[in-house]
Amino acid sequence: MIHFECDYTEGCCPQILEALSTSNFDQTTGYGNDDYCHRAREIIKTLCKAPHAEVHFLTGGTQANLTVIASALKSYQGVLSPETGHIAGHETGAIEACGHKVLTLPTQDGKITALQVENYCKAHYADASREHTVQPGMVYISFPTETGLIYTKQELQELYTVCKNRELFLFIDGARLGYGLAAEENDCSMEDIAALCDVFYIGGTKVGALFGEAVVITNPALQKDFRYMIKQKGGMLAKGRLLGIQFETLLKDGLYFSVAKKAVAQALQIKRAFKAQGISFLFDSPTNQQFPILTKEQLAYLEKEFTVNFWQHMEDGKCAVRFCTSWATKDEAIARLLNSIERMPK
Amino acid sequence: MIHFECDYTEGCCPQILEALSTSNFDQTTGYGNDDYCHRAREIIKTLCKAPHAEVHFLTGGTQANLTVIASALKSYQGVLSPETGHIAGHETGAIEACGHKVLTLPTQDGKITALQVENYCKAHYADASREHTVQPGMVYISFPTETGLIYTKQELQELYTVCKNRELFLFIDGARLGYGLAAEENDCSMEDIAALCDVFYIGGTKVGALFGEAVVITNPALQKDFRYMIKQKGGMLAKGRLLGIQFETLLKDGLYFSVAKKAVAQALQIKRAFKAQGISFLFDSPTNQQFPILTKEQLAYLEKEFTVNFWQHMEDGKCAVRFCTSWATKDEAIARLLNSIERMPK
Amino acid sequence: MIHFECDYTEGCCPQILEALSTSNFDQTTGYGNDDYCHRAREIIKTLCKAPHAEVHFLTGGTQANLTVIASALKSYQGVLSPETGHIAGHETGAIEACGHKVLTLPTQDGKITALQVENYCKAHYADASREHTVQPGMVYISFPTETGLIYTKQELQELYTVCKNRELFLFIDGARLGYGLAAEENDCSMEDIAALCDVFYIGGTKVGALFGEAVVITNPALQKDFRYMIKQKGGMLAKGRLLGIQFETLLKDGLYFSVAKKAVAQALQIKRAFKAQGISFLFDSPTNQQFPILTKEQLAYLEKEFTVNFWQHMEDGKCAVRFCTSWATKDEAIARLLNSIERMPK
Amino acid sequence: MIHFECDYTEGCCPQILEALSTSNFDQTTGYGNDDYCHRAREIIKTLCKAPHAEVHFLTGGTQANLTVIASALKSYQGVLSPETGHIAGHETGAIEACGHKVLTLPTQDGKITALQVENYCKAHYADASREHTVQPGMVYISFPTETGLIYTKQELQELYTVCKNRELFLFIDGARLGYGLAAEENDCSMEDIAALCDVFYIGGTKVGALFGEAVVITNPALQKDFRYMIKQKGGMLAKGRLLGIQFETLLKDGLYFSVAKKAVAQALQIKRAFKAQGISFLFDSPTNQQFPILTKEQLAYLEKEFTVNFWQHMEDGKCAVRFCTSWATKDEAIARLLNSIERMPK
Repeated sequence: MIHFECDYTEGCCPQILEALSTSNFDQTTGYGNDDYCHRAREIIKTLCKAPHAEVHFLTGGTQANLTVIASALKSYQGVLSPETGHIAGHETGAIEACGHKVLTLPTQDGKITALQVENYCKAHYADASREHTVQPGMVYISFPTETGLIYTKQELQELYTVCKNRELFLFIDGARLGYGLAAEENDCSMEDIAALCDVFYIGGTKVGALFGEAVVITNPALQKDFRYMIKQKGGMLAKGRLLGIQFETLLKDGLYFSVAKKAVAQALQIKRAFKAQGISFLFDSPTNQQFPILTKEQLAYLEKEFTVNFWQHMEDGKCAVRFCTSWATKDEAIARLLNSIERMPK
Repeated sequence: MIHFECDYTEGCCPQILEALSTSNFDQTTGYGNDDYCHRAREIIKTLCKAPHAEVHFLTGGTQANLTVIASALKSYQGVLSPETGHIAGHETGAIEACGHKVLTLPTQDGKITALQVENYCKAHYADASREHTVQPGMVYISFPTETGLIYTKQELQELYTVCKNRELFLFIDGARLGYGLAAEENDCSMEDIAALCDVFYIGGTKVGALFGEAVVITNPALQKDFRYMIKQKGGMLAKGRLLGIQFETLLKDGLYFSVAKKAVAQALQIKRAFKAQGISFLFDSPTNQQFPILTKEQLAYLEKEFTVNFWQHMEDGKCAVRFCTSWATKDEAIARLLNSIERMPK
Repeated sequence: MIHFECDYTEGCCPQILEALSTSNFDQTTGYGNDDYCHRAREIIKTLCKAPHAEVHFLTGGTQANLTVIASALKSYQGVLSPETGHIAGHETGAIEACGHKVLTLPTQDGKITALQVENYCKAHYADASREHTVQPGMVYISFPTETGLIYTKQELQELYTVCKNRELFLFIDGARLGYGLAAEENDCSMEDIAALCDVFYIGGTKVGALFGEAVVITNPALQKDFRYMIKQKGGMLAKGRLLGIQFETLLKDGLYFSVAKKAVAQALQIKRAFKAQGISFLFDSPTNQQFPILTKEQLAYLEKEFTVNFWQHMEDGKCAVRFCTSWATKDEAIARLLNSIERMPK
Repeated sequence: MIHFECDYTEGCCPQILEALSTSNFDQTTGYGNDDYCHRAREIIKTLCKAPHAEVHFLTGGTQANLTVIASALKSYQGVLSPETGHIAGHETGAIEACGHKVLTLPTQDGKITALQVENYCKAHYADASREHTVQPGMVYISFPTETGLIYTKQELQELYTVCKNRELFLFIDGARLGYGLAAEENDCSMEDIAALCDVFYIGGTKVGALFGEAVVITNPALQKDFRYMIKQKGGMLAKGRLLGIQFETLLKDGLYFSVAKKAVAQALQIKRAFKAQGISFLFDSPTNQQFPILTKEQLAYLEKEFTVNFWQHMEDGKCAVRFCTSWATKDEAIARLLNSIERMPK
């Protein structure tokens, strides 16, 4: 079986294993205060053109989400999220376990708009009994979304403007950031992302690292004492250097971007192949996740050789599934998949 | 500078890096459901002679502590811990952040006794207003303790008997378990540990792994739905195999035990060298942590070449410091330290 | 202005003030362990024909909801609630602040069905990645609902059957229980309520008391150590007798039921008066809350003399409002309202 | 039996029952937004000479403590408290249930000093690994303390100065404030209290009210959105007027102070009577709580007629007990107690 069900089925870019081997017997201080981490932080700040940002390395996405959100919100505040947001449905109530409600906004495609946020806030503050409801304190979005889509620069600007007007922090979950930045139609640079939110992270786990996410905090109001939060929530790695080494390796020479670019190109090959068979898609994704809508026969045919991720049942008996490419996807795997798509039942 | 301040200054046993390289492009399912994890679990259950135990791999000690404790306690319960316990003072209130009070018991050497636990419970349940105080629901100890000491088998048996009588879970933090088991005077096997508590963990971070702790749950009452807790608390690694590979490597052929044994032997060399100079110790540790009490001059002399961990000021102007050895400590480093100890000011 | 916007605009049934006066200088022990509380508990258990139930008195509805729910759920569990449930939208995230997600089920009229609960559970347990989502652990409903409706005995039986099959606790918020029991079409007795759930409460605040709710726990699994939870959550009144005295007064001779019956009869007078004017209703409520849909002119006319509670805008420019009667509503107030309804703009 | 074990064995000052009766059928808006509450707030601000303070009425002491503390602290912060503080040992971990550690300072008599706070902070911030420990964010003291003692104005000034230097909020639990202010040796006015902390409360439950505490927030940083917190924590009374009516009655004409004064005078009669018998005291209290150290025979003799509160065993077989007077203590009760003290075994 060839795995296409997610983007974390392999280990890591081999350069990372080499770097871990080379550095293995260096003695360093713990908890992220070593030189590897320091260098990785500088590289990230340079990439973001954000010299005053603070950068912290966490072990995974849920960890990063809950630590950032719990750090930013007051007890009576919640976080606005698209109803499809990872924090809303796939983290076992991690945010609620920190005491905060996830306030969901409806969405068809996984994105939310500045207008939705503004309307939510307007309604909240217009309510004379607003203290009986959770106050919105932050907006959480993903770039790309769970559905593979990206926000345009203008959409981000509008969202961030509303957030600032309404005293909301804007947090961008970048678990797949590399794949979003690599999309052809993307008009946001890493620098833009950094400038258009208060905090975001550069996802490593799904884009070439063994594990780890680099949280970049640009808003000084969120920077103070963040390390206490990391420790309290169990995300402070004793050998923090493991994360520094990985991000230094991925980012010092553009490896992060090149592997993401290749994965997106492969995903678009898959997309075109399905389209050539007249297949439609649940979301029109320009990134490494593709969501074709298949008949049961087509799915059964493909699942003989490939694992995919079931997404949702469609009304007509078809079902939408997810194919993911990643930094590790081999061209031969793509070739075999394209071949099968061509031969699958009509 | 040669680092002796803690046991996490290097990467990992080289065999682990090899195993990570060999497996790097294997495709596996995520979240600990892969074959590497399955095999590692079987090895651990065999070592523990606990076929019905459940084994989960978490990323670090604080993560393991908070997940286990939050999983076991009811809202109104707290966890009894020696006042020197890691959860009591070095985890930024991680347990309290999960809603539970750490109920500290006084200790001179880092250990607590069955009698202390019994007396605490007796007083609690004798109090007519006991619902105004936190109910003890679990006992937390470390093996070895923060102070390097180990419990005897009889001490553990007595503690566990009280725990069962008082309906308390017994949880053993084994962040340095390997070093405890390797102590000459130790009379507990891994099997004994597993039999004399409800849940414990085999520490990887400090004993040869890059990171990771293997939580072994022997009490069925604590097994149900533990994976929900791991996910909620942010400890579920997407590429769970990273932990399976590490523990399989460490445990399949006894590597874990041999590296721990070597580190303990090195620590005892340090201990004997200090003793030969008439130095006394804060704790009489038989494991990889040694706590000599030094004059300022002695410390200044040693700190020219070695980093150590400050522990506490002593009344006579001296101070107690910690020297740690680990799986990575080189014999040359020990030789240089022994040499310096011999030459340090009297 | 005459207030109809809610059912807590006055103090309490005068009999309660008399009882407080009579007992004022009696010396009693604190925290609900006095004879007034003991007698009130016995009366409630007799009314419920539930001799093994435990009864606790709490100060208010949000307090009761959060204490019961936090007491019943494990850390990774959430509570299923209609999306209109009080805990879902009007308690400032009180449940989330205790660490638990409110899992909302869609509803048109404020009620949920056994089938909805069953389907939710079926989907949860069918999901191979279920540990990435919150596990349902309890079902919360209100009797009557926020929308004034009541469940039939059969509906409750079906719900409770599903709950038992799915290992969910069933919790009935009875903040307005008296008004529900007093509805003409109601076929549930207090005894039925007690038999068809695990825990519920008899609302005092809105049905004749100064304040206070009597939580009745019939399921022994929820009884243990509940007083610890009350204390921890700040709901244990030092002078617990205040609640015992109130519930004894309300329940010993049926005062609770007679005042509720009167209020419901008054509400139905209002309902008939609006119907006579061709007014339709948002919900077809048989209890003390009525939700007519009025034009702006009609509302403006009525608001000159009466305060009402805005409920929601309707598509055609009309709006739905709430009129509440209560134990304290005077017949003259009703007469004036009926008169105005008759004269309001068509 | 005559009760002396605590100061909440009776109902309330009869004037409160009268005021409740008079106002019973007034219709008011809910949740503390009524005129009774508004007037009570103005009276309190005038008494405190703090026109910009915000005043909120909560139902009880634990509720007030947890709401204020959870409102003030960041997730990674804890609250410094004397080890005898009510929050440290008598609230079932209510503060921890909100996520915060209670950081206890040792004390012999229930009081803590500015120097203790300064030293704690100095040590915390001097620790390079401080993010591994809980950051102090607030100081909690009681006036009078659990042990009946009061702080001098100078002691409060020193504490508050340290708090401001160290960016700690100072919170004074005034559950028995009236008895503290009434002590002969007290040199603090209500105005002084208000000026020498960031937030405090005027206890009603133990000083003449049925229940209720008036939280006075003088620091604007703590004022914002406090009502959200009250609602979330279950402390917002639907009929908020009940608290407004009580505090207006107690404070408009000095009733609060006169009943406290009487109770303190009665307590000093008890103190003198014991002293006349050569009895010593655990604490030298000038307020309504007295802690004589009695032999078993003396205690047994007194307990035939009076209930007292056991406090602690003393080394010599004696035990310390607590006698409380209150607003409700009758002169005849005192006379009988004095008589018995005189006749008790030597």
